[in-house]
Amino acid sequence: MSETYGMHVEFTAQPGRGDELESLLLEAAAGTAAVEDCLLYVVSRSVEQADVVTVTEGWKSEAAHGKSLKDPEVRALIERAMPLMAAPPKASRLRPVGGKGL
Amino acid sequence: MSETYGMHVEFTAQPGRGDELESLLLEAAAGTAAVEDCLLYVVSRSVEQADVVTVTEGWKSEAAHGKSLKDPEVRALIERAMPLMAAPPKASRLRPVGGKGL
Repeated sequence: MSETYGMHVEFTAQPGRGDELESLLLEAAAGTAAVEDCLLYVVSRSVEQADVVTVTEGWKSEAAHGKSLKDPEVRALIERAMPLMAAPPKASRLRPVGGKGL
Repeated sequence: MSETYGMHVEFTAQPGRGDELESLLLEAAAGTAAVEDCLLYVVSRSVEQADVVTVTEGWKSEAAHGKSLKDPEVRALIERAMPLMAAPPKASRLRPVGGKGL
C-alpha cells in the first residue's frame, strides 16, 4: 500500500496582497472537494504576518499529489498565484499518520 | 464571534525516538476527538527527518486552545513528551480560514 503524503507550505504574498493569495488558495481548496485522494487542504493566515498564508495538505499518496499538479485547473491557479508571491514558498514534506480531521 | 486559531508545530525528538513521540501525539489527537472546539489535530512525520514529528491544529478560538492546555490529561501528556524532545518546538501561530478537512 502506498504511503500517505502531505505538505505544509508557507507562502509570502507581495505586501498587502495576502487577501488575494488567500482567495486563490481557497479556490484551490474548493477544487479538491471532489478529489477523493486529497484528505486535507487547509488554508490559514499567519497570526503575526499579514502577508503570509499557509496550506496544510494531506494526500493518499505522493503520486496522487503529483497527479493533482498536472491538472489544468490547478496549473492555471498556480499561474495566477505566481505574480502575488514575494518569495519562493517554504515547504515541508510530510507523511500524515493520523489525528482529527484526516 | 471569536476568530479561529491554529498552530503548526514542528517537534524534534531525541535521536531514534520519533516513533515514541508520534505515539504520544496520536494519543493527544485521540483526546481531542470529543472536544467540539477542536477542528483539526493532524499528526505527521517529516519525510526527510526521521526524528521530526509535526502537529497541525485548528481550534474555534484561541481561548479554546488555551483551555485545552489546562486540561489535566493534556498536561500529563506534555510532561511525558518533554523528555523525548531534543529541541524546543518550533511553532507558527495561524488563523485557519477554510478548505478541505476543516
